Amino acid sequence: MSIATPKGFRLAVASAGFKKPGRKDLALAVSDFPASSAGVFTTNLFKAAPVLAGQDAVRQKATARAVLINTGQANACTGSKGMDNCKASMTLVGAAAKVDPGGILPASTGVIGAQFDMALWEKAAPILAANLGTASIEDFATAIMTTDAFPKYAGEVLELGGGSVILAGVAKGAGMICPNMATMLSMVLCDAAVEPAEWRAMFRRAVEVTFNRATVDGDTSTNDTLYGLANGASGVKAAGKDLEVLEAALIRVLADLAYKLVQDGEGATKVMHISVTGAASDKDADLAARTVGHSPLVKTAMYGKDANWGRIVCALGRSGAVFNPDDVDVALCGVDLFKNGQPTDLDFDALLKEPLEQRDLRIDISLGAGPGKYTLLASDLTHEYISINADYRS
Amino acid sequence: MSIATPKGFRLAVASAGFKKPGRKDLALAVSDFPASSAGVFTTNLFKAAPVLAGQDAVRQKATARAVLINTGQANACTGSKGMDNCKASMTLVGAAAKVDPGGILPASTGVIGAQFDMALWEKAAPILAANLGTASIEDFATAIMTTDAFPKYAGEVLELGGGSVILAGVAKGAGMICPNMATMLSMVLCDAAVEPAEWRAMFRRAVEVTFNRATVDGDTSTNDTLYGLANGASGVKAAGKDLEVLEAALIRVLADLAYKLVQDGEGATKVMHISVTGAASDKDADLAARTVGHSPLVKTAMYGKDANWGRIVCALGRSGAVFNPDDVDVALCGVDLFKNGQPTDLDFDALLKEPLEQRDLRIDISLGAGPGKYTLLASDLTHEYISINADYRS
Repeated sequence: MSIATPKGFRLAVASAGFKKPGRKDLALAVSDFPASSAGVFTTNLFKAAPVLAGQDAVRQKATARAVLINTGQANACTGSKGMDNCKASMTLVGAAAKVDPGGILPASTGVIGAQFDMALWEKAAPILAANLGTASIEDFATAIMTTDAFPKYAGEVLELGGGSVILAGVAKGAGMICPNMATMLSMVLCDAAVEPAEWRAMFRRAVEVTFNRATVDGDTSTNDTLYGLANGASGVKAAGKDLEVLEAALIRVLADLAYKLVQDGEGATKVMHISVTGAASDKDADLAARTVGHSPLVKTAMYGKDANWGRIVCALGRSGAVFNPDDVDVALCGVDLFKNGQPTDLDFDALLKEPLEQRDLRIDISLGAGPGKYTLLASDLTHEYISINADYRS
Repeated sequence: MSIATPKGFRLAVASAGFKKPGRKDLALAVSDFPASSAGVFTTNLFKAAPVLAGQDAVRQKATARAVLINTGQANACTGSKGMDNCKASMTLVGAAAKVDPGGILPASTGVIGAQFDMALWEKAAPILAANLGTASIEDFATAIMTTDAFPKYAGEVLELGGGSVILAGVAKGAGMICPNMATMLSMVLCDAAVEPAEWRAMFRRAVEVTFNRATVDGDTSTNDTLYGLANGASGVKAAGKDLEVLEAALIRVLADLAYKLVQDGEGATKVMHISVTGAASDKDADLAARTVGHSPLVKTAMYGKDANWGRIVCALGRSGAVFNPDDVDVALCGVDLFKNGQPTDLDFDALLKEPLEQRDLRIDISLGAGPGKYTLLASDLTHEYISINADYRS
């Protein structure tokens, strides 16, 4: 499925040589007009240089002109030299693309600790600028891949009161994924005209119910960044009722990207859809869902297609959520395994043989302690995850 | 190395048929005299029937006569029938061994949710009783193994003021290990005479600095239990200064067992010795150490013998511990990788090539935020862990 590029945006990709020769590792999106900007960033205390620079840019101005993403180096834990290099890369690309460097929102991904090779940036910046307008959303999504198995993008054409607008998003990431904000790197472009304050608030809310509810390995990265640009190039203004329509579409696009991140979790073969209801609070439901979604024993059981509900129950019991064990129900793929704190009599191995072959596995948990609820997408844990991560740097 | 059995204890093992035919799955330790008892149990909300029964027994009486351990079934999440079966097993074994069932401390390990086959218990109880006095500490440790690769036991002969006493401990467990109390099943026997209150207090303190600081996979089980019996059969009373000597020995024995649990972590090839100092509080140091020790990315890097300090730093940053990134130091196997929030210039790949081949890996972290400190033993994450746990029930 191909996704239209929102109006008034030009995209480019290039090979700077940060990674294996010939591999695309640089992507730029430029808006022809100042665009309302939004940025949501990692909560990790070690924030990469581009995260700090991007936070500054979003804080200082309500609009921005471009998003610049490189792979190969994360530019994290690189100190003041890393920050200087980040700014220098923005200056180089800004000059080549004729965009004020202060209007560029940067993001980086790759190995932590390595410094940029600025000679590669100097060579690549003019090429990147010359390529503007030649790349599609899919090309952009492909250029920002690292251990990703496939490019991740999603979009919609929306009818608002004043006409149609386009919303398109990309994301990358497969490991070090437990966004406590946005996951890894992601960008959403829109050609509607939206007030910056509205646009930003919409992102905060949408991230909370999408990226923040997806996990691969519980490792929140130093570089997680989501940028949003809305440039008004469609000539359609989103206000009043339209804002709700746009926000609903934004949630669908981010949810689609979040699902793809988990689906493409390093080595993943399963996507667990964990739903917790009946918790004493939403916070308790969150704790319970995350403990199940992060449990290596639950994750390996799902990989092994094993209806091992005991591991789910055990994870709930140690989660810190408060409940009475006798009130707990657990269903897997719609089959009741555990009711009122006791195993059911169903022949669940037979009933679940077929469902556990599927990629998408529903885990429905009810704690019987209150109105709190939460949902979480989580991947399984496989031999391939170990292979990828035991070898990553070499 | 063989360990002496403390005086006044008789041990027995048997094959009840809970597991594969011929495999030992039942172990009993009987004290000839009422022994000061101690029990430390899982904090999981889902407590197995033997945990609830053992808690009751320890709460109601200051002394006990026996510890009874079965493998094959965890008797967890088995409801009132599970509790009835647990009590019936105590009655059967008590009658056969001529011990008041109320003086038996029970523990079970195995698959969650399955009910005992009481016919097997009826057949096995007299055999187990008849075997009393024929098993060694090592036999006992071997009989309680599940996915363990080797039996775990440790002991010391101690000189107290009044003469020498023997302290001997066993433990089992390889997966579902993140004791928030004792790990899995463990038992310590001692032939010193110790006041019950002193004996119990000693266990609480010793567990805090040993078992509670060891983790394989972060999954605190439903059955974790540690029992201690001190029967005075040596004729040596431990009081005053002797209590400190005994407690120090108890800590050494439990630390030895905790190390063995991590060394034998499912599929583990490494033992990480994580030390966090300079945290704002001990609690922050605990958070930081656990986040590093549980990070799948750190664990797989250690398995891959990769000095990937970025993953350690990233885990610290998301741990929730409060610190200034610029004050953080990280050393791996004694080599400084990260100083004052920045990578060092050392050629760490060359320096660490040899040390990373070893089983024991020191990770020293200083957060520069205060006097808080914590240490944690953690295993790596390997292909073998996935194989074991994707197949466990089948």
